[in-house]
Parts: sequence; structure tokens; C-alpha cells
Amino acid sequence: MAENDSFVQFLDTAVDAAKRAGEIIRNGFYKTKHVEHKGQVDLVTETDKACEDLIFNHLKQQFPTHKFIGEETTAAYGITELTDEPTWIVDPLDGTTNFVHGFIFHIVATSLFLGSPLCVFLLVLQLEKFLPVGVVYNPIIDELFTAIHGQGAFLNGKPIQVSSQSELVTSLLATEAGTKRDKSTLDASTNRINSLLSKVRSLRMSGSCALNLCGIACGRLDLFYELGFGGPWDVAAGVVIVEEAGGVVYDPSGTDFNITAQRVAASNPFLKDAFLDALRQSE
Amino acid sequence: MAENDSFVQFLDTAVDAAKRAGEIIRNGFYKTKHVEHKGQVDLVTETDKACEDLIFNHLKQQFPTHKFIGEETTAAYGITELTDEPTWIVDPLDGTTNFVHGFIFHIVATSLFLGSPLCVFLLVLQLEKFLPVGVVYNPIIDELFTAIHGQGAFLNGKPIQVSSQSELVTSLLATEAGTKRDKSTLDASTNRINSLLSKVRSLRMSGSCALNLCGIACGRLDLFYELGFGGPWDVAAGVVIVEEAGGVVYDPSGTDFNITAQRVAASNPFLKDAFLDALRQSE
Repeated sequence: MAENDSFVQFLDTAVDAAKRAGEIIRNGFYKTKHVEHKGQVDLVTETDKACEDLIFNHLKQQFPTHKFIGEETTAAYGITELTDEPTWIVDPLDGTTNFVHGFIFHIVATSLFLGSPLCVFLLVLQLEKFLPVGVVYNPIIDELFTAIHGQGAFLNGKPIQVSSQSELVTSLLATEAGTKRDKSTLDASTNRINSLLSKVRSLRMSGSCALNLCGIACGRLDLFYELGFGGPWDVAAGVVIVEEAGGVVYDPSGTDFNITAQRVAASNPFLKDAFLDALRQSE
Repeated sequence: MAENDSFVQFLDTAVDAAKRAGEIIRNGFYKTKHVEHKGQVDLVTETDKACEDLIFNHLKQQFPTHKFIGEETTAAYGITELTDEPTWIVDPLDGTTNFVHGFIFHIVATSLFLGSPLCVFLLVLQLEKFLPVGVVYNPIIDELFTAIHGQGAFLNGKPIQVSSQSELVTSLLATEAGTKRDKSTLDASTNRINSLLSKVRSLRMSGSCALNLCGIACGRLDLFYELGFGGPWDVAAGVVIVEEAGGVVYDPSGTDFNITAQRVAASNPFLKDAFLDALRQSE
């Protein structure tokens, strides 16, 4: 099987899993939900667990040798290390707070992380690892974002691209308030927002990192950064989609993006330097 | 004609106008838009104007004696005074920044403001005036919120009600960054957010005041406040919908809501006191 065929097969399987999980999410959307507390501001629902099981089982059946990393599994078993094995990074329900409250952004995000002989790019990108496919699905409004490395990004099958904005002052920024509520994190977060708001058109907070990245990919948003999110599952799929839509993903400090660093910034290429300057000035 | 029949006729006509305007918005959603600047962070599109004309003409035909207040008309003619005449308050496109950027929240909001003999409540509510019907429509995801005074609130025809949250710490808060970028407004705004974030579960910013109010009405959000929005057209329809869904609308200082004050807070009744305390502590 040619490498591109494998990638298409990976994507098709991931889309299939996301759509099945989406059905569970849709069915649970208007029902009363049984909520467990994972700390003061973090929630996990039965739906989250059911979706992760479904996606894992579906992928395991198709690719029995692949590994898996997901928010719930990681929480249960403490597995976060990314090895060189082909590894699916799954977030069955990005935005659990949204789901619990019935806010309309509920995201299924799946991506395949490859650091293995499955792909030739590994030879070049061994240090950076490699993300060949990404899927982000919002089952409530039926929006499916997909990307295969080197083959572009799509929304419900139609090609998408990042915005052509080149000025901060006309740009729409997204970020999230995060879950940490200690004073120094809160102060840093709101000081940053204060500084950035004086430079951009407006600010949005959707409650989903995956959706914010897809917003960058399809030009609904121009700038996005987030610090201190949960783990690779929050960003992996969105990163592929942004890059395949012509966008750039980087660390908010200006260094290369690191999938395990819990820090991300994204934009079109024209805005990157000005955004990084603004982020530096906001510290 | 009985008063309730009039109200139903008002609502039906407003829904009809909103749906027609929604078609214009949907058609323009993916097209390149011609944008005029109304200052640095305010935008108005051809679509906005076309929708306002359409809604005004449609309502004028049905109710030739009624008056009209809309964002564009007010900007053009400086009319903002609410008299005792039956007056339609129209926002053809709440969230113009969202529209220009292709962000998915685009709202058509229409409400009828009555301070006239058309309704008996005027005798009781003369000072506070009276809003008998409200319509908020998001044509992109086809969500129609409606309410008639005393008859409940509905989302796509199904009854809705505010959340049953009674604790700030488990509540989802919404606000907007606003359009003013002077230092004192920005500092006050982010200090308020900082203080509130230490008390609630999380924060959302959708870019639409009307949609935030509808979020309160259907329980997707628990708390909402905004200071310094454009005018009555941003809140009028949402206020009726929140109140008919069992919610309460008040001034963030704790005084009665005033439709011309450009200040609003909304929640379910259980959260009102705690929210007002938190808002006072955030000043």
C-alpha cells in the first residue's frame, strides 16, 4: 500500500470513529447529564468516557498495532509519553464544560501521531515527530474538519484556508480563560488579555481549543493562543488542520511548537511576527 | 382583536421578517464582503443595511402606524429616544464583527417596544415601558428564539428555561470585551474579568449580546453581563426571551434594568444575589 493510501485510510477510519462518537454526543446533548467532578472547574461526563471507548475500540480493530493516547486514559493510567510508535491522539469531547452546560461547541478530535517507519517523513522529522492526519468534528452543528499532510484541509469536504488579514488591528483573536484559578495565573492571563485587546479588533472564547484552531484554519479567526491546556489531545488534530490550511502553529514565545508543552499559538503566516511581538509585550 | 391575538400577530410578523433577513445573511456568509469602517473596531456590511431595510419595510407594511428603531437608522438619523408609541427595535445583524470574519454567530434580533394603549400593561408599567414580543434568529445554525409576554420562551418551537444552577463556582459566565479601547475602560474590563474568573467555572465570549441573552434563556449559560454595548437593539429581544424563560434581567449595579442605559446583567433568579455581590466586588 502506498503511503498516501495509508493516510487516506487513516483519515477515513478517524472520520468514521468521529461520526459514531458524534452520534453519542448528539443523543446526550439535551439530556440531563451525570457529572463527575475532577476538581473545581473540570468536568467529565459519561458521554466523554463512552466516546473515548468507542473511538479506541474502532481504531484498535482497524489498526491493532497502533497505540492510543486520550484524555481519560491518561488521567486513569498516567500515560502521556509519545514514543516513536504510531499513536492515535484522541479527545472524544473537547469542551466538556460546554457539553455539561449545553453550550453548542462539542468537539470530537482525533489525530494520528507518527514517529515510526509508517511514514518516510520520519526520516526528516524524527525529532519533531509527525502528524499525518487530523479530524475535528462538531456533531451539534455537523461541521467536520479534516486534513491529510500535504493534501490540504477541508470543512465538510470543501477546501479551507486561513484568513488573509495582515494587520493586528483588524484581526479577531481567540483564547481561553483556562482552568487554573490561582492568583498569579489569573493575573498573568488577564494582563495578557488587557494588553492584546488594545491591539486587536475583538476577542472570542469558545471553550474549545480544537475549535479555535479550526477557526484559524477556515479564516473565522485570525489569531489564537492558549497556555496551560490539558495535553496533546487538545491540539494535535487542530495543528494538522491549521498547517494544511496554510497557517502556522508556534509556541507563544516564538520558539517551535512542541506538542507536549501545553502552549500553542496559531495564525496565518503574515500575522505571525506582529502577533509574537504583541504576545511578548503582553508578558 | 384581543390583545393576545395582537401579540401573536406581532410575533408572527417579526419571525417572518427575521427569516427573510436570515436568508440574506446566509447567502452572504461565505462571500467576500464589502466592509465600511465605523471607527477602528466597528464594522458595518452591505448585508447589515439590506437586512435592516428588508425588516423595516416588512414591518411597515403590516403595521403602518408603528415606529422603528434600528442600529443603522439611529447612526444615520440620531434617533434613539423611545416614546410611548409602539416601536419596533431591530438589530438586523448583531455581531457584525463575527459576520465580517465568518464567525458562526450572526443574529437577527427584533422586538416590539410598547408604551402605548395597544397593551393594558402600560397602565401598570408606564414608567418601565413594556416589551411584549422578542425574536432572535441565528440563520447559520437555524436557531430561532421567540417569546411573547406571559406565554413563555421557545427555541425552534420547543419551550426553554433558564438553568437551575445555584452556585457561582459551577456557573458558566459570558461577557464581551466591548469596542472601547481606551486604557481606563480596558483596565476596568479586564480587572472585572479577573475578579469574576476566580469565582465561576469558566468564561465565554460569543461576540453577540443577543445570543448571550438567549444562552441564559435556554440554560447554556448561567451568568451574563455587558457594559457599554451599542443601544436598545442589542438587548431588547433577548430581554423578553430571558424573562419569559424564567430568568431575570437587571442592571449590573443591582438597580432595575434600563433599556437605554447600555448596561445589562442576566441570570436565573437563584444566582442573582451572588452574581451582584461578585459584580460589586469586581469594581
